[in-house]
Amino acid sequence: MKEASKRHTVAVLVENRFGVLVRVAGLFSARGYNIESLSVGQTQEPGVSRITIVTTGDDLIVEQIIKQLHRLIDIIKIIDLTGEPFVDREMVLIKVSAGPSVRAEVLRIADIFRAKIVDVSPKTYTIEVTGDEGKIRAILELLRPLGVKEIARTGKVAISRGNRTLSV
Amino acid sequence: MKEASKRHTVAVLVENRFGVLVRVAGLFSARGYNIESLSVGQTQEPGVSRITIVTTGDDLIVEQIIKQLHRLIDIIKIIDLTGEPFVDREMVLIKVSAGPSVRAEVLRIADIFRAKIVDVSPKTYTIEVTGDEGKIRAILELLRPLGVKEIARTGKVAISRGNRTLSV
Repeated sequence: MKEASKRHTVAVLVENRFGVLVRVAGLFSARGYNIESLSVGQTQEPGVSRITIVTTGDDLIVEQIIKQLHRLIDIIKIIDLTGEPFVDREMVLIKVSAGPSVRAEVLRIADIFRAKIVDVSPKTYTIEVTGDEGKIRAILELLRPLGVKEIARTGKVAISRGNRTLSV
Repeated sequence: MKEASKRHTVAVLVENRFGVLVRVAGLFSARGYNIESLSVGQTQEPGVSRITIVTTGDDLIVEQIIKQLHRLIDIIKIIDLTGEPFVDREMVLIKVSAGPSVRAEVLRIADIFRAKIVDVSPKTYTIEVTGDEGKIRAILELLRPLGVKEIARTGKVAISRGNRTLSV
């Protein structure tokens, strides 16, 4: 018997026409599936976008959703990366209080996580950091006591390890 | 008279219930607006997600869409960052051919762009790079002749410069 429920990371190549994102995301929400993370970006092919969706659910139902996705117009290719080795990462912008008393500590933490300072104001630093879920959680936990004012996370992108590729 | 059409970067805080993303994206596509980039990630508030949408269009119509967004259930706050200074960045994973003859050149380019190698196979490197649109375009143009096999882009996230914050 298969496991009841696990996290799935699905990458979808689509024609970049309006409405395609709504139809793709709609298939998940129609089944009551919450999308934990979603990102959409251009690919190297003009007019083709890549959507990465992370959701948690029953293997069989995710498989059914993928079958339905295949039938949608404007869908080029789909891959459920869950069963194979892949790299997944996200990026976060974090605006943190940086008054004189904590500034050095913020910079130390940024340095340890190989994060970059992308904006500075008299009272705040904005930090850019990338990594997997664990790394992002760790830096946020360290910065929180210093005063995290705002977070903007990209959602995950994922790519198979090794030679295997998903492209048009 | 206002400019007819320009690029808008809109950040939306939403309750993370299923269907909310579909309703938000649906409002844009119902008006025939193509979403150039969209990303969704968690915030520091449990149950609250932040959606960043980049679209190009008439100021007045984008303003109307934002008014309609305000009326949707599960929407907490919306900000059109377009009229103020903001930082926007995205992350890209790039799988590039890395046979013996080009490996050193790939590493040199990665180094110049402060990119990280996140996966290695006998024939490929996977590179993670962050930046604004111009920087991403530049590294892709340099890597293309060496053989770009796959790209996964996050879509943009954006945050106001300085003290101003968008949070619950």
